[in-house]
Amino acid sequence: MTHDTASPPAPGALLVISAHAGDFVWRAGGAIALAAERGRRAKVLCLSFGERGESARAWRDGLALDEIKELRRTEATNAAAALGAEIEFLDAGDYPLLETPELVDRIVRVHREVDPAVVLTHPPADPYNGDHPAASRMALQARVLAQAIGYDAPGEPLGAPPVFFFEPHQPEQCDFKPNVLLDITPVFDRKRKAMECLAAQQHMWDYYTDLARRRGVQLKRNAGPNLGLSHGTMAEAYVRLYPQTTTELA
Amino acid sequence: MTHDTASPPAPGALLVISAHAGDFVWRAGGAIALAAERGRRAKVLCLSFGERGESARAWRDGLALDEIKELRRTEATNAAAALGAEIEFLDAGDYPLLETPELVDRIVRVHREVDPAVVLTHPPADPYNGDHPAASRMALQARVLAQAIGYDAPGEPLGAPPVFFFEPHQPEQCDFKPNVLLDITPVFDRKRKAMECLAAQQHMWDYYTDLARRRGVQLKRNAGPNLGLSHGTMAEAYVRLYPQTTTELA
Amino acid sequence: MTHDTASPPAPGALLVISAHAGDFVWRAGGAIALAAERGRRAKVLCLSFGERGESARAWRDGLALDEIKELRRTEATNAAAALGAEIEFLDAGDYPLLETPELVDRIVRVHREVDPAVVLTHPPADPYNGDHPAASRMALQARVLAQAIGYDAPGEPLGAPPVFFFEPHQPEQCDFKPNVLLDITPVFDRKRKAMECLAAQQHMWDYYTDLARRRGVQLKRNAGPNLGLSHGTMAEAYVRLYPQTTTELA
Amino acid sequence: MTHDTASPPAPGALLVISAHAGDFVWRAGGAIALAAERGRRAKVLCLSFGERGESARAWRDGLALDEIKELRRTEATNAAAALGAEIEFLDAGDYPLLETPELVDRIVRVHREVDPAVVLTHPPADPYNGDHPAASRMALQARVLAQAIGYDAPGEPLGAPPVFFFEPHQPEQCDFKPNVLLDITPVFDRKRKAMECLAAQQHMWDYYTDLARRRGVQLKRNAGPNLGLSHGTMAEAYVRLYPQTTTELA
Amino acid sequence: MTHDTASPPAPGALLVISAHAGDFVWRAGGAIALAAERGRRAKVLCLSFGERGESARAWRDGLALDEIKELRRTEATNAAAALGAEIEFLDAGDYPLLETPELVDRIVRVHREVDPAVVLTHPPADPYNGDHPAASRMALQARVLAQAIGYDAPGEPLGAPPVFFFEPHQPEQCDFKPNVLLDITPVFDRKRKAMECLAAQQHMWDYYTDLARRRGVQLKRNAGPNLGLSHGTMAEAYVRLYPQTTTELA
Amino acid sequence: MTHDTASPPAPGALLVISAHAGDFVWRAGGAIALAAERGRRAKVLCLSFGERGESARAWRDGLALDEIKELRRTEATNAAAALGAEIEFLDAGDYPLLETPELVDRIVRVHREVDPAVVLTHPPADPYNGDHPAASRMALQARVLAQAIGYDAPGEPLGAPPVFFFEPHQPEQCDFKPNVLLDITPVFDRKRKAMECLAAQQHMWDYYTDLARRRGVQLKRNAGPNLGLSHGTMAEAYVRLYPQTTTELA
Repeated sequence: MTHDTASPPAPGALLVISAHAGDFVWRAGGAIALAAERGRRAKVLCLSFGERGESARAWRDGLALDEIKELRRTEATNAAAALGAEIEFLDAGDYPLLETPELVDRIVRVHREVDPAVVLTHPPADPYNGDHPAASRMALQARVLAQAIGYDAPGEPLGAPPVFFFEPHQPEQCDFKPNVLLDITPVFDRKRKAMECLAAQQHMWDYYTDLARRRGVQLKRNAGPNLGLSHGTMAEAYVRLYPQTTTELA
Repeated sequence: MTHDTASPPAPGALLVISAHAGDFVWRAGGAIALAAERGRRAKVLCLSFGERGESARAWRDGLALDEIKELRRTEATNAAAALGAEIEFLDAGDYPLLETPELVDRIVRVHREVDPAVVLTHPPADPYNGDHPAASRMALQARVLAQAIGYDAPGEPLGAPPVFFFEPHQPEQCDFKPNVLLDITPVFDRKRKAMECLAAQQHMWDYYTDLARRRGVQLKRNAGPNLGLSHGTMAEAYVRLYPQTTTELA
Repeated sequence: MTHDTASPPAPGALLVISAHAGDFVWRAGGAIALAAERGRRAKVLCLSFGERGESARAWRDGLALDEIKELRRTEATNAAAALGAEIEFLDAGDYPLLETPELVDRIVRVHREVDPAVVLTHPPADPYNGDHPAASRMALQARVLAQAIGYDAPGEPLGAPPVFFFEPHQPEQCDFKPNVLLDITPVFDRKRKAMECLAAQQHMWDYYTDLARRRGVQLKRNAGPNLGLSHGTMAEAYVRLYPQTTTELA
Repeated sequence: MTHDTASPPAPGALLVISAHAGDFVWRAGGAIALAAERGRRAKVLCLSFGERGESARAWRDGLALDEIKELRRTEATNAAAALGAEIEFLDAGDYPLLETPELVDRIVRVHREVDPAVVLTHPPADPYNGDHPAASRMALQARVLAQAIGYDAPGEPLGAPPVFFFEPHQPEQCDFKPNVLLDITPVFDRKRKAMECLAAQQHMWDYYTDLARRRGVQLKRNAGPNLGLSHGTMAEAYVRLYPQTTTELA
Repeated sequence: MTHDTASPPAPGALLVISAHAGDFVWRAGGAIALAAERGRRAKVLCLSFGERGESARAWRDGLALDEIKELRRTEATNAAAALGAEIEFLDAGDYPLLETPELVDRIVRVHREVDPAVVLTHPPADPYNGDHPAASRMALQARVLAQAIGYDAPGEPLGAPPVFFFEPHQPEQCDFKPNVLLDITPVFDRKRKAMECLAAQQHMWDYYTDLARRRGVQLKRNAGPNLGLSHGTMAEAYVRLYPQTTTELA
Repeated sequence: MTHDTASPPAPGALLVISAHAGDFVWRAGGAIALAAERGRRAKVLCLSFGERGESARAWRDGLALDEIKELRRTEATNAAAALGAEIEFLDAGDYPLLETPELVDRIVRVHREVDPAVVLTHPPADPYNGDHPAASRMALQARVLAQAIGYDAPGEPLGAPPVFFFEPHQPEQCDFKPNVLLDITPVFDRKRKAMECLAAQQHMWDYYTDLARRRGVQLKRNAGPNLGLSHGTMAEAYVRLYPQTTTELA
């Protein structure tokens, strides 16, 4: 993690809750790298490895379940390192990722431990993948539970960190209407490197590079011509769940 | 306008487009006062005086149309001064406020002259008042026209200033779902003074003071307990129309 | 109009604003007949005769424009009489029914004269017929204008009569989600007679009889088995625009 | 319960299903008191005590779980008495309130026993509190199950009592668009007394008094000036889930 | 099943997933009969018999649970035969139909076995019946799971068969906005015969015949006058969940 | 236009209604080329040249208004030719494109002359460009008017051609949720050539090539692995306005 050690104290941790081992890279790699660059703690929590639903090539290659999990763990660990983030795997199983009180409780405990300033997760609708909404529901429920002093888990009650949903593969079909465009130009190289850690999904590298460019064009369009953004602006799109609280309209 | 003259250059002007002469006070007085406090230019554009639709008491008192217009002009001018803002009246008539290309053109010219960094106006739906949506539609159209280099009006093409809708009287019926809560605690006294300039609507002073307190409670709930907000937080609610562009999720 | 003259004073007038000369029969004939039966004034305001857009058979039969208007006027007048309602035609032209300040003003004046307790009109969306939404927008605007003491028209300012949208031909495509089901069983015969006044549209008689039966089945389903509704319940569906104000939840 | 014993038979029971022990007071206290005043049975069903999620002060004061439950039980019992209602606690646990077939079955049985004419519960969305939607889903499911003659529980099949959602703390964020405004002026004192039974949440007393006043202003605005409502109208806001069935549009 | 044996190979199987034993007849009988007529395999999967929630008459007649199940099984089997379809019952229980991983797994296995070209099921919202959305959610989840090569069930991974929701009893209340109208005129007699296999619900025969006629009128209106559709067009309405993929706009 | 002259008669004309001179190329070029390839008449109707709002470079280069119009006319004519389409310009002015009855009437007459089997136009919402929704509203209104035998314009009444909205620049912000994905792979080279006719917007060539690839990936995802689509599938996204009428679910 390279950041200016003389910078002011980091403004709090980033917690990213991902259904499978690859989601955080494609969808939030830029936000993670930005946080890390600025000296913030960034932690990725993978609820599963995506061993059944997101590892088609490995299955076609004849790998066994445990081998696939190990493969995905290694790839995701490398990608997290490339972004400057910690990573933890709950190995809760995928396809389906089952919602259970026990799993929610584990996610509560991670919230209490990390005390995030910002939480990122999947949006709540995805007709192509039931695990994504399941992860979203559990992440949101866990955050609320972690706020209650009466909830029986170690640590202090959580504040009210804002929640951002990251972009799904087919945004319109998931009713994903971005209300935040994040400029990731300074860390895009880092995101690309993280994507390249996911060797089995090489066709996605260019796809998500194109997407970042497209979101960058939209960012420029929404930011206006006066910002002096360079031609090659790269961006990620997010949906903020709760109202923004601010001391200035801008 | 009281602000520290040694402060950095103001970050750009605030333009508030209001159907009637009182709207900007109840709905955006805090945002206006905040901008003025910080040395930003704040300009209020009243499309009409609200002489027919928002001056029931004056009509019941038997005033003539011109007298009512003058009354509303004076009140609104005083309120703007109390907030630290300029004010301009287009006297386009109300109830109904008619949408015409000529009126839109006048609003374009104001955009070109002010070159706002932020635009505030009514939300696009209000089943209780047709003038508010009409003002909103014209404001939005004018902002887009002002961006075009080919539009025949003095001044430079506009950038892409963000637009915020301010709160209508019955927010849920107007499909107004706030996504920004603005802390106006430091300037609430100023907003109250501006409200008190609108002598005929005394019952509204407490109503909008209560509303500010209620939005303040929501702001605290959404900002979390760690912000150390004082008990008496006052806030205004807004809906951001275009995606926020940012270099950091927060 | 047959009603018990010893009944308590009628609770106020019903005003029905219809784009074309037939709409009020198919869509609101039951509500009109109920009001009339109970001694309420019921007034139908037809903005046009539907001479261009809703008179295909007459055009195919080679009638001239004036003949078609006269035909539609006669049919609608007979239908209104069958329902026990007054009727007025503004002859504003159809296909397209143009929205103009002058036409809105005429509708304001009707509001001021009738002082309705309830207003019925078209819903605001209809991708199959642009005149219906135009009538809806003008009706809603006129009602709000009529409320303003400052609006320059004879009569007293209007109160806040509730508005109900009646059912369009393809309800789902018009985003018409009924929130009121009106039992018209006691007056259905009267509605059928009114439909039969519209001789050129005989295929609609059974269509809207079937619809009334279908809405009646839904009414029974929503009212519960305990109401003792007879098997042949007939109903009309409406969307209430503004919140219901009440002294009891029921 | 003070009501005229010579009045006609009460029109049926009111059943209020509340996730936690305090919700029914803030959100539906007026409706409950109105029903009781009119001689209707009013029954509150608290699925939990809100012992973990809604008792922050007690936890900070160091009370044990059982003490907190007992405290909340006492407060809620007093509040229900002040409103003239019965109360029952299912003690199903909160934060999270888990959805189980067994709990739904218990709620079915309460429906069958009470045979409500009206059901009140939480709205189905609340991003700040997962227990509220859980209670809502279970209440709605139980009502439907109770309607089936084939459902194995004592009592007769339920009719189709209308369901009203009461107001959440941040209505716009919960997509709560009121379509019913209930005048609670005659019983507001009673509601205030019930609120004051909830000693630990003193800051809420004024907050919900203000809200009642605000909803009262909206009620007056929607009811029109002709109703002769007193200046101090107090109201509660509701969303009706199923279509209203009626014999008159009003 | 009568179809031209010289026709090209059938384009793939139709899988219909129904919460109860009667749903597929009222809501999708036409689509099923059309598929069968054209030589396609049509398979109906009934998750339950509707023994508790949809068999009111049998309960009133005093039948025992097993007798009711058997009765429904017989009726549904006959109806499926009349339509030319296979039928399978999972006997998972109704009112409530519980969502379990085991039941979803059984539905996955049916997908793998049938390898459907098209899937029909309930829409995801129905405030009158919790079993319908439960069936919908499980059907959609099973289809996605069946697509994953890593899901541990016999057979090949599924392709991406389009999903169509069939029409609920109160479409508007279920947010059911049809985007496909299917002409079932050639097979309507067959659908009527299937409906008549459901002896206990005789009042529904005409109700759904009327509905087919009504949807037929809408089909004609949307298809235009040039199609030469006969007067008695009968149709069923559907909502397509995923985007249509096509090589031609039509 | 190269198509097999021995093919069956073309299934009807395609009419594309575009606010500005370039829209049809970026957004519907593939659909146009497909129609032309198959021997269908394809006609593009440009309401304006986009001379003020979509010609920033020309204005910066100092061209006069008439020069810019001529430039855009030439470019668009060349692009239409590259796609195999006719083109007509109404020169109604842009920024703003004003909605007038006269302009609508001209569009009606084009409908009557072309008698389209399919209509393409802009979607009805676009917060970045008021001309696009204006064009959409006029196109939809004209299509409905053209259907009326009583509308006074030459030609036969129109049938009910389906309408498809083509993709705006920022689809999510325009509430554009595609429900049709059109495979344009066979004609993508032709679309690219047409784009290259728009010399001033070179940066768009790659942007819309990338978009076609992205929509192609989605098409493949929605069509399933069994379709044997080549790796380089290119697609355009559309929203179908009216329900699809069909004789088969597929």
